[in-house]
Amino acid sequence: MSVPLHSLRAGVIGTGFIGPVHIEALRRLGVQVTAICGSTRSARACADRWGIPEVYGDYDYQALIRSPNVDVVHITSPNKVHVAQALAALRAGLHVVCEKPLGMTSRETRRVVHATAAGQTPVFAVNYMCRFFPAVLQMRALVHRGDLGRIMHVQGHFFQDWLLHETDYNWRLLASEGGQLRAVGDIGTHWMDTVSFILGARIERVFAHLETFHKTRYRPRGEVQTFAKADPATMVPYRVDTEDFGSVLMRFGRADHPHADGVHANASISQVAAGWKCSLALGIYGTRGSVRWDLQQPNEILLGRRDEPCQILQRGTAGFSEDVAGFTDYPGGHPEGFPDSHKMHYRAVYEHIAGGRKSPVLFATAEDGHQEVRLCEAILKSSRSGRWVKI
Amino acid sequence: MSVPLHSLRAGVIGTGFIGPVHIEALRRLGVQVTAICGSTRSARACADRWGIPEVYGDYDYQALIRSPNVDVVHITSPNKVHVAQALAALRAGLHVVCEKPLGMTSRETRRVVHATAAGQTPVFAVNYMCRFFPAVLQMRALVHRGDLGRIMHVQGHFFQDWLLHETDYNWRLLASEGGQLRAVGDIGTHWMDTVSFILGARIERVFAHLETFHKTRYRPRGEVQTFAKADPATMVPYRVDTEDFGSVLMRFGRADHPHADGVHANASISQVAAGWKCSLALGIYGTRGSVRWDLQQPNEILLGRRDEPCQILQRGTAGFSEDVAGFTDYPGGHPEGFPDSHKMHYRAVYEHIAGGRKSPVLFATAEDGHQEVRLCEAILKSSRSGRWVKI
Amino acid sequence: MSVPLHSLRAGVIGTGFIGPVHIEALRRLGVQVTAICGSTRSARACADRWGIPEVYGDYDYQALIRSPNVDVVHITSPNKVHVAQALAALRAGLHVVCEKPLGMTSRETRRVVHATAAGQTPVFAVNYMCRFFPAVLQMRALVHRGDLGRIMHVQGHFFQDWLLHETDYNWRLLASEGGQLRAVGDIGTHWMDTVSFILGARIERVFAHLETFHKTRYRPRGEVQTFAKADPATMVPYRVDTEDFGSVLMRFGRADHPHADGVHANASISQVAAGWKCSLALGIYGTRGSVRWDLQQPNEILLGRRDEPCQILQRGTAGFSEDVAGFTDYPGGHPEGFPDSHKMHYRAVYEHIAGGRKSPVLFATAEDGHQEVRLCEAILKSSRSGRWVKI
Amino acid sequence: MSVPLHSLRAGVIGTGFIGPVHIEALRRLGVQVTAICGSTRSARACADRWGIPEVYGDYDYQALIRSPNVDVVHITSPNKVHVAQALAALRAGLHVVCEKPLGMTSRETRRVVHATAAGQTPVFAVNYMCRFFPAVLQMRALVHRGDLGRIMHVQGHFFQDWLLHETDYNWRLLASEGGQLRAVGDIGTHWMDTVSFILGARIERVFAHLETFHKTRYRPRGEVQTFAKADPATMVPYRVDTEDFGSVLMRFGRADHPHADGVHANASISQVAAGWKCSLALGIYGTRGSVRWDLQQPNEILLGRRDEPCQILQRGTAGFSEDVAGFTDYPGGHPEGFPDSHKMHYRAVYEHIAGGRKSPVLFATAEDGHQEVRLCEAILKSSRSGRWVKI
Repeated sequence: MSVPLHSLRAGVIGTGFIGPVHIEALRRLGVQVTAICGSTRSARACADRWGIPEVYGDYDYQALIRSPNVDVVHITSPNKVHVAQALAALRAGLHVVCEKPLGMTSRETRRVVHATAAGQTPVFAVNYMCRFFPAVLQMRALVHRGDLGRIMHVQGHFFQDWLLHETDYNWRLLASEGGQLRAVGDIGTHWMDTVSFILGARIERVFAHLETFHKTRYRPRGEVQTFAKADPATMVPYRVDTEDFGSVLMRFGRADHPHADGVHANASISQVAAGWKCSLALGIYGTRGSVRWDLQQPNEILLGRRDEPCQILQRGTAGFSEDVAGFTDYPGGHPEGFPDSHKMHYRAVYEHIAGGRKSPVLFATAEDGHQEVRLCEAILKSSRSGRWVKI
Repeated sequence: MSVPLHSLRAGVIGTGFIGPVHIEALRRLGVQVTAICGSTRSARACADRWGIPEVYGDYDYQALIRSPNVDVVHITSPNKVHVAQALAALRAGLHVVCEKPLGMTSRETRRVVHATAAGQTPVFAVNYMCRFFPAVLQMRALVHRGDLGRIMHVQGHFFQDWLLHETDYNWRLLASEGGQLRAVGDIGTHWMDTVSFILGARIERVFAHLETFHKTRYRPRGEVQTFAKADPATMVPYRVDTEDFGSVLMRFGRADHPHADGVHANASISQVAAGWKCSLALGIYGTRGSVRWDLQQPNEILLGRRDEPCQILQRGTAGFSEDVAGFTDYPGGHPEGFPDSHKMHYRAVYEHIAGGRKSPVLFATAEDGHQEVRLCEAILKSSRSGRWVKI
Repeated sequence: MSVPLHSLRAGVIGTGFIGPVHIEALRRLGVQVTAICGSTRSARACADRWGIPEVYGDYDYQALIRSPNVDVVHITSPNKVHVAQALAALRAGLHVVCEKPLGMTSRETRRVVHATAAGQTPVFAVNYMCRFFPAVLQMRALVHRGDLGRIMHVQGHFFQDWLLHETDYNWRLLASEGGQLRAVGDIGTHWMDTVSFILGARIERVFAHLETFHKTRYRPRGEVQTFAKADPATMVPYRVDTEDFGSVLMRFGRADHPHADGVHANASISQVAAGWKCSLALGIYGTRGSVRWDLQQPNEILLGRRDEPCQILQRGTAGFSEDVAGFTDYPGGHPEGFPDSHKMHYRAVYEHIAGGRKSPVLFATAEDGHQEVRLCEAILKSSRSGRWVKI
Repeated sequence: MSVPLHSLRAGVIGTGFIGPVHIEALRRLGVQVTAICGSTRSARACADRWGIPEVYGDYDYQALIRSPNVDVVHITSPNKVHVAQALAALRAGLHVVCEKPLGMTSRETRRVVHATAAGQTPVFAVNYMCRFFPAVLQMRALVHRGDLGRIMHVQGHFFQDWLLHETDYNWRLLASEGGQLRAVGDIGTHWMDTVSFILGARIERVFAHLETFHKTRYRPRGEVQTFAKADPATMVPYRVDTEDFGSVLMRFGRADHPHADGVHANASISQVAAGWKCSLALGIYGTRGSVRWDLQQPNEILLGRRDEPCQILQRGTAGFSEDVAGFTDYPGGHPEGFPDSHKMHYRAVYEHIAGGRKSPVLFATAEDGHQEVRLCEAILKSSRSGRWVKI
């Protein structure tokens, strides 16, 4: 690494749930957070709380991009403005960390791919930060080294329950705001990206069945915060045009190593699964062993064997590989969590920016973000046709 | 109940892995095991071990059926002779407990349905004994009472690893011996029957993807026991015509109560899932709550809620309903297991025979056994066509 | 083994909670249960239910002992008659399986030790059946083989909650009925016997702190069943002279192998620990590894390591030793439970009777039962004096 | 709060394992880390990594204290200099966050108590940060509100294995460096402080049994990092004068609420417990319910009940109280961990400094730190005398 991370300066667009997650993670790394952009009121509040010197209200992201004190732009705004903001930042020569999904349609996300395809461009990362849980990196290492043998099948789910009731409201429920696919788009893509990353292979075909259980929901009259409670008395009904649930079967293509070609995967995605809060769970089954993991207990992997005892691989202990050690800061038994995955993601991106430029690039690129949008489109098409669809 | 269970007399056909499981369970109930049938040598050994008075060697099941000392015939022989033996026993007016699957094809199993369809016939049960884990009965009660609200989706798996290696051998690997579907037929049907039982609804449509990962396997030259180890040096290759794995999506029909119409389910079935030994796992998700259970930890159900804490329902404690209490004998914290589910199944069947004839019948009937065979045929058809198939 | 188990005949004294547990386990083994003794009404009911030919009412255990059709007497009566019944059975030349505790005081239990000490006596076993959970035998094998290195310390608990409320009633609450120590006597002795068995060493010194949280309790006017609910309205207060809880520190002596000399152990014993139903839990810590186990999840042991991943040893799979295989009947993943531990205990005793007479004797002898009573007396003495007490 | 946290400035003494944990947590809060002190080389390295402007090498903590740019001093240096540094900082009118233990003997820690006892002194906190796991605050709330009834007994452990081998080395192994009690002093005090905090009561009497299993250990010739591996070839033997293990029984006094007077507790403390990495585990048993928790799975509490199902209370969901919500930043299912407990501790301290001065003070004061040192002295005395010792 040629320059220390604390010499790099981040500007953050967006002050909702995820914006402060970025800010906090950046500060842990020593990165300077120099600018914030959002509604005038919340940008100001955010700046006051964190001591951020430059404030751009009125959602004036162009002004933030023009600041001479920003090296990297973090886009944590609503989905539908991601692409415009990303393109503007890239045009200004700034590096970008963009929240997922990269955009609303593959047509618009393709533009970002093209903008980053040239030779000496800025660094562009999409925030599929689940790749940076040490357990995910460890599972990837096990697969790539052949420790699990030939991978045969993958099963899992991403289950939440924050939209269980018909009175739960969030802008993501509206296709016009969040995109045509909601459960699959918002959390299913995390599952697919994580499994692709672990396997080292891309999804080539999908079969899906989507359902909307609450075809009518009720929303508050005004604005609401994510995860906030609403008062039923003030609510108005609306037609839901996004899915609550999806069963998705996937066929992966050739892997970038010899152990995971043509793998079949099966995921259930739900935002109405009572009791689960944020369970991205997966099991990867090979001819010599299996691994299972759940984001809700991120420090442990269960390693399944046939002819010897199953093992519990614990982050920070002998069960984890040396090459994963760079992605964890706390010793075994001192649990890390969700915020640490953000920190590790941004560390990888910023070290890349700072001069590292390691290969392979571990973080999700514009191409990876574009792939997830294409997958969503294929999943919708499959559910409507009742057939397998190629990407 | 009009007569005590110890006045009833069972004859058991088959002395493999599952035959002694029946015998032991029957003895726990006080039922007399009066006759055993199998190869001359193993029938004799079995009789000597258990003190069974009548021994029918040479697989002479007709002789066992003719014995004046048998009231109920337990068929634990290989799959392909189930139907013939079942029909013979029924013709002799004997009650039958038949191992699953009921038969090799729906064409032959339909004959059993017809034979049991008349008015005053003997009692006929297929050994889908998973219904009789107290946890399964409890989940059924929660669904039927509406405690989970409207059921939306179901997810689960049945994972084993006893056929992981290409040198693992069992007669079930051959379609000619065990039927065209192996993983789905042998364990997937347990999953489907259990979920149908809990939901109180039948599967109407399936979509499936089947895979055979070991297209060539190696088998010992002679006979082998289930779960026994083979010596690779003596093995011969053979082509495998049954699947190792299946992803199965299901659409259930109307339930016999108001809370589970048209439910979607997703199951992964594998006999090559390293680390899992006998994991029939399922999660049932309703608008008010969810339940999760795994046969490998049968004494507990995890009850998921959104607006209050999740609960652990423990067999034999306050978490289980009074109406399930009749299906468990040991207090909470004193774990019951796999053998106990057999005991409770046969208790239900024998009490029915003894005069109880309760309604609804909880055990799987010939009709239920026939349904599972039809499902297997539809699943195979779907996997080949890549489309949803109606039953 | 010289004679088959089904040629042996058992007579059971006692028809409470644990008597039928014995009967069922014996029947699973093929052993004939030929006689039952208890109150006239319940002995008759028990015989009717199980088809037991000889019934001895009016608690006439002498008559049962005189029966020509009894080889082995199972004593499952209240604690205070154990010794008298045991001595009577021994005098008649009968083998005995006696419920724990062996007696009320070490003075009386010493008489049983003497009665069994001579050369060619009948077989005498005390029902510390926890030794026969396959997991316990496996932990014993690991310790004895030195796989855990030198054992340093042991920690655990036996926690139940069935006496949590001051209105919970059972005869064990009265010192005059159950003995001076209740929680420690009833369940603590299971813990101590199990750990002694695993370590292959006897406790030599104890330090204890006992507490009675409910100094006054309320009992129903008439008789009550164990685990049955009482009606508060009909209750009368009484002074409790037995402990609800104990912290017990122990010093073990030399082991019968080189790996566990002078081990320190620490157990908490409680019958008022809300949420726990029957949790006998223990952790054994050696210089090379540790094992942890809980009776409530009896099929698994957690093997702790420092420089390699922890392992989950699962009964019936590669994690368990060959020499433990004789104590389990069901394959891995097919859970066994509490009733199976009784079956395995009685199998060991009856095979011993039938001619096996293996060495070492694995089941608890009269000497072992006597040791537990002496431990209880030392524990009481320590709690009163606030000092370590030698056995 | 009168001033924002980012206006406060911290100086950190010490650059070992725990120093950076403080720095990172402070940066997450927006607090400025303006000065670092340690050996010249490591202080410089630390400053370079994090962008800390003022560097005080040669362990010149007096210089750091004199800096005009430090409001709060964090003492993360070796145990034996804590008191001198704390007194110096207090004399300079600076607020202090001091690592535990507060000092080597109660004689010296008493001086800190006196220095902070006066009216308008700086704020002084000892880093018993386990109090600030949301689960710990939640258990405290449940106890204080009487939701568990009258607390009867507490059981738990603090188990690690990082000193399992006789070749594991750390300065804490030497009484002259870390204090006379090592396992109890280093981790046992966390357990005792956490339980005291939850119960709202102080320990009044202790009984202890301490053991040193490795009486001779081997150490590297030079300096070593905590958690680093050493080369056995270069090692020299030394006599160990600190304990590996302790069984500690405790008697708590009156609580500051009506629900936890005179509670008995039992803890096992070990730094040689193979398989455990950092398991601070405790169970608190009351007449109406129990709670269990383990630091290694910090986001969940198991709530035990007798007459209704046990519950899993999950941080950030309905199971946690509103008044605990201020101590967690991430939604349910998004796991927090060990670093987050430090963040929450320092947030509480800095908000207190910034003007909040809430009552009751939740963080550990000098008085609390002094109490832990006194407990260690009493524990040593008890182990030597074999008797209960009053504090």
